[in-house]
Amino acid sequence: MKGDDRSDNASQARGGGEDSHGVGKPAITQTQMMESARNQATFDTSKLSEIIFGSPEAVKIHKKAFQRVEESTGTTDMSKLPARYGNMNREDMLLEGLRAGRAAFHDSLDNGDSTFRYHTQEWVLTNSNPLGLTEVLFRPMIELQGTAEQIAYWTPLSRSGKIIGSYTQTEIGQGTFVAGLETTAVFDKRTDEFVINSPTLSSIKFWPGALGYMSSHTIVIARLIIGEKDYGVHAFIVQLRSLKDWKPLPGIELGDIGLKMAYNGTDNGYAVFNNARIPRSNLLMRFASVSRDGAYTTHPLREKLLYGGMLKGRLAIIRNSAFQLAQALTIATRYSVVRRQGHKQLQQNSVASIMSYKLQHYRLLMLISRAYASLFASLASDSAYQELQKQQANGDHSSLSYTHMVMAGLKAWVTANAADAAEDARKMCGGHGYLMISGLPEIVNSLAATCTFEGENYVMWKQVASYLMKGMAARSLPKDMAYIPSPTYGKRVRCHVSGVDFLHVDNLLYIFQHRAARLITEAYQLLRASRGKGAVQNEDRHDVVLLSAAKAHTELYILQSFREHVTSISGSMPTEVKAVLTRLVRLFALTTIASPLCSSSASFVEDGFLTLNQLGDIRTNIDHLLEELQPDAIALTDAWEFTDASLTSALGCKDGDVYERMMCWIRQLPINVHASENDSVFRDGWEEVIRDFIAGGRGNVTEKARL
Amino acid sequence: MKGDDRSDNASQARGGGEDSHGVGKPAITQTQMMESARNQATFDTSKLSEIIFGSPEAVKIHKKAFQRVEESTGTTDMSKLPARYGNMNREDMLLEGLRAGRAAFHDSLDNGDSTFRYHTQEWVLTNSNPLGLTEVLFRPMIELQGTAEQIAYWTPLSRSGKIIGSYTQTEIGQGTFVAGLETTAVFDKRTDEFVINSPTLSSIKFWPGALGYMSSHTIVIARLIIGEKDYGVHAFIVQLRSLKDWKPLPGIELGDIGLKMAYNGTDNGYAVFNNARIPRSNLLMRFASVSRDGAYTTHPLREKLLYGGMLKGRLAIIRNSAFQLAQALTIATRYSVVRRQGHKQLQQNSVASIMSYKLQHYRLLMLISRAYASLFASLASDSAYQELQKQQANGDHSSLSYTHMVMAGLKAWVTANAADAAEDARKMCGGHGYLMISGLPEIVNSLAATCTFEGENYVMWKQVASYLMKGMAARSLPKDMAYIPSPTYGKRVRCHVSGVDFLHVDNLLYIFQHRAARLITEAYQLLRASRGKGAVQNEDRHDVVLLSAAKAHTELYILQSFREHVTSISGSMPTEVKAVLTRLVRLFALTTIASPLCSSSASFVEDGFLTLNQLGDIRTNIDHLLEELQPDAIALTDAWEFTDASLTSALGCKDGDVYERMMCWIRQLPINVHASENDSVFRDGWEEVIRDFIAGGRGNVTEKARL
Repeated sequence: MKGDDRSDNASQARGGGEDSHGVGKPAITQTQMMESARNQATFDTSKLSEIIFGSPEAVKIHKKAFQRVEESTGTTDMSKLPARYGNMNREDMLLEGLRAGRAAFHDSLDNGDSTFRYHTQEWVLTNSNPLGLTEVLFRPMIELQGTAEQIAYWTPLSRSGKIIGSYTQTEIGQGTFVAGLETTAVFDKRTDEFVINSPTLSSIKFWPGALGYMSSHTIVIARLIIGEKDYGVHAFIVQLRSLKDWKPLPGIELGDIGLKMAYNGTDNGYAVFNNARIPRSNLLMRFASVSRDGAYTTHPLREKLLYGGMLKGRLAIIRNSAFQLAQALTIATRYSVVRRQGHKQLQQNSVASIMSYKLQHYRLLMLISRAYASLFASLASDSAYQELQKQQANGDHSSLSYTHMVMAGLKAWVTANAADAAEDARKMCGGHGYLMISGLPEIVNSLAATCTFEGENYVMWKQVASYLMKGMAARSLPKDMAYIPSPTYGKRVRCHVSGVDFLHVDNLLYIFQHRAARLITEAYQLLRASRGKGAVQNEDRHDVVLLSAAKAHTELYILQSFREHVTSISGSMPTEVKAVLTRLVRLFALTTIASPLCSSSASFVEDGFLTLNQLGDIRTNIDHLLEELQPDAIALTDAWEFTDASLTSALGCKDGDVYERMMCWIRQLPINVHASENDSVFRDGWEEVIRDFIAGGRGNVTEKARL
Repeated sequence: MKGDDRSDNASQARGGGEDSHGVGKPAITQTQMMESARNQATFDTSKLSEIIFGSPEAVKIHKKAFQRVEESTGTTDMSKLPARYGNMNREDMLLEGLRAGRAAFHDSLDNGDSTFRYHTQEWVLTNSNPLGLTEVLFRPMIELQGTAEQIAYWTPLSRSGKIIGSYTQTEIGQGTFVAGLETTAVFDKRTDEFVINSPTLSSIKFWPGALGYMSSHTIVIARLIIGEKDYGVHAFIVQLRSLKDWKPLPGIELGDIGLKMAYNGTDNGYAVFNNARIPRSNLLMRFASVSRDGAYTTHPLREKLLYGGMLKGRLAIIRNSAFQLAQALTIATRYSVVRRQGHKQLQQNSVASIMSYKLQHYRLLMLISRAYASLFASLASDSAYQELQKQQANGDHSSLSYTHMVMAGLKAWVTANAADAAEDARKMCGGHGYLMISGLPEIVNSLAATCTFEGENYVMWKQVASYLMKGMAARSLPKDMAYIPSPTYGKRVRCHVSGVDFLHVDNLLYIFQHRAARLITEAYQLLRASRGKGAVQNEDRHDVVLLSAAKAHTELYILQSFREHVTSISGSMPTEVKAVLTRLVRLFALTTIASPLCSSSASFVEDGFLTLNQLGDIRTNIDHLLEELQPDAIALTDAWEFTDASLTSALGCKDGDVYERMMCWIRQLPINVHASENDSVFRDGWEEVIRDFIAGGRGNVTEKARL
């Protein structure tokens, strides 16, 4: 306690001599720990990659595309601080998004593959950068709703990037519920034009990606009005900005809606229309048209055809979410095998990492099984969608409601699970997972969005439930509900499986079927018992019960798809690969039924279908599966083939050299670089606040309090 | 389809005429909807505020303190875009944090109240700004571990702000596990100093708040080494920076660790020590001291006394999390009563908001009941802590392990629940909850941190479980475990409650007790059955089961505290206030037992204690409670007394005028202001990328790809 508060501590001032220990390395390095963990795999990782991507060729295409784009953007050198972790303000982030979008767009254009549809947030051509929606929404919508002539005109323009497109549906007051949109497109017979307006505050177009500053054209969803008559919402192509100088065209106010939790590489925007005019021919006229003299005609199946076409966006979200979850798990798994913590760390020469703690590998492996379940369910729904498209092309719309239900359920389940699971993966990295440079906050916050956009998840569950209730009311059950034994099923059914028989996937399917059948039956009985109120009010009243039924039906679909995908693996695959995937199917099903860490388990047991002894058996099986799977944890995440550049994570690099990389990046942060040029002082803070504060001064507190 | 892709759309260019509708208002405004919702309350909100804050005086003190600080920082005018939503880079955020910290620190100093300990993230004097830790950690640690002489010297300096303190414990390779820390403090007898070093990469001090650039002094936790002997971790005061020019003292490298998910108003930092020297007298010597000639003496109860003292930080986190959750729920509830969506919106003159949808009010009210449960449990643990302090002062440490267990369990439960619940509240605001200006991302991301810092939650659960297992093994159960009927309790017990009897809180307590008793008994039996392995390994193996037991015991404590607090409400309170809180106790308990939206319910039913019919009765009771509580939703959140400035939310302002405020703030965003000065063009994007891109050019893609 020498010295006084105004002068430096004299004793300390002599520090920094030559007998410095410097910063050394522990006996076993993190890269050695990683190597050791990776070497434990029971199977050839590259074979599993072929299953994930579909074929050896697909893996090659994927890897090459990443290599090209990462080289062209200069992001491969992991010793450099990635740009996104620099000192970026809103405008810097947008520029970075434009650059990423340009690289992926051109690569996609040159090579014509779909790599940048799904596989990583960093380069994906969706809403994560301002150039993705041209391909993902603008062009597909025109191809769905446009006439042959319209398609011939607009498709080449957007495909080549000569215009930049967006899709403008949601309003500040209205999201998922399309019928409630308020923007108007009034036909002006005099000039043969539509006049677009935002008639109310709540009708301001709000949220569309790339709408603020980046797109030249958009598809506006607006109410078509001819004379006094409102024909409901239709799609119109509206040019937003001049291609000469990018200025907004008359009657259009455009802007950015500001920072979001993620997706800040794109300019989700707003638009206020004030008598903006477009030619009549900009109405997309395949299913509905307006003639020169204002006569309206519509295709009798317009709704069905539009609906079918719009499912494509959900497909992309489902696949994307599976990959993003895998990304988070890759980071968390890699960091877990090189991180020592707690009592085991005290054995300095041990390679025991926190992966050896039960709660760590339990949570990670359970979530890994869910990432695979999501991927294989997404592949199954892809096939269902392609089948639907073929049938619709032949005028058969009978599978539409089924396919729609499957996609709604998967969208809700996969995105909600991915968001929660990625956040849990982030938490499993301790404090470091909270740092932006871990790469995890960006993944978690991106996944948080998927639960809301393209159909809010609770609305999705309601749609699944509606399908199920209609199915129950029908004379005979739809094929996918045929597992429901009778309209009065449920009470007093007991499961008779025990011991290792819980590993038979047939038994697991039976348990999932029982639960879904019981919940659907109970919900239907409740609904019937309270008939009388309007149908909508009645369903609203029972929403919580309906939600459980919808989830149970969807989880059954997921387990079925997972099992079928594994069963269908070609005989030429090494048996170890099939073996590890079979373990994952079992782990997925068993943890869904009986893990205290999983929220769904109550619905499996609340009716007494399973006893506490059976739950004990299930938990023993889970423990054995975890022991078998633990050596494969790294291989199961490596197989998704994320490059270091696409993970952009100081914790998740493939070599495991985590702490070196963290310090290397941190020393490059702009704030630290600036300070090092100023005697290691944060100059603005010292001069504006601290100097005066420690002298007891109050400063001019309001001075700079607001920008 | 007129025009070509290179010229503007001729037809559109005539827009913006005089027949504009402009942007109007719907028949019933959002402020009217808010007023109508607020008027439905069944009780006087100010009375409930008195219960939340403890007394009418406490409410007044709270309100005045907020008023002063908000006025002095110029943040009360809600028509101005709050600074944090402006174009801030890392350094701007830090400056903003300093300004906020200065205002709260001085107000706290002048008025001596504890308002800024708990009640809002915006002004709280904790880790959310660089000046909070001086009061929250630095000074209390000195007062706990320092000698009278040390306290007399350091306390006035830190209390007055003449030095800025921080607390430096965690290292890049080590968080919660203090015994594993590697930083060394070697006694140099020659100079009567300690020499501080970071001997390994993993020993770099990492994460402490305000360590990077803002604190002048810190308490470093390091291994005390005298000669060859390692005496384990001790606390040392280290001056980091010169008070004259703020430069780091010799042998100390300091820096910021970069952007985090939240808490970006402070500089969580790193420190590398390379022979930094401090006087011997800077060792905090109350419980352990080193003499001039290097002799070490320690207090026999050092561990116990340190442990007791460190619980205070957890108290603050628990209370803070309850308030932050209430903040998120205030925003979500307010927006829910002014937001029309879906089919009900089509009835234009109805005031039906999305609050009328079952899933919306169910989720909101359930979470509101959990915010109150968290608050009242936090108050109960406060009392337990004060009791412990009194006893410890008298040399009685017998309550330490109990109090520690209570705080560990509450810390884990309250923070995990608050983080999940705030995220659910955010999702309930649809897409707009994803915007930073909603205020919700900052709350959600701040709460995410609480699950990890000051004791990672899974480690907390393990500590609770350890206490419980020790209690089971003891000759007689500790008082708080006396509800466990026998060491073989569990099998074949049935609950006989039905119908409205589920509303009796005694019955609910009985159900919570049964569950906890069963889970604890089962866990103990499993552990005993697998004895033989080392104790630690054995517990690790059964971590998942132990986790359930620990949660059940903690949830019982929470229900008890909630009930006791409501029972103890003074007779002078209007009966409606007690009535509404009683409904919340019931809703909290019943939804924990039987809501499909709550993850804990499986453990109540898996042993057959409750039948499906009983669950049906419980769900009917929940429905009735929700009907009764719905009119009070706004009042239940208003009562927490958050000012508009402290919510900093475009969705959560008290008047409900959401869409007006959103557009007002958005038009003030720097990117939009800059663009409006540039013909509404984002100039950098147009010039660097877009102009060339739409001309088919590839640009120099690597040009600016990295900062």
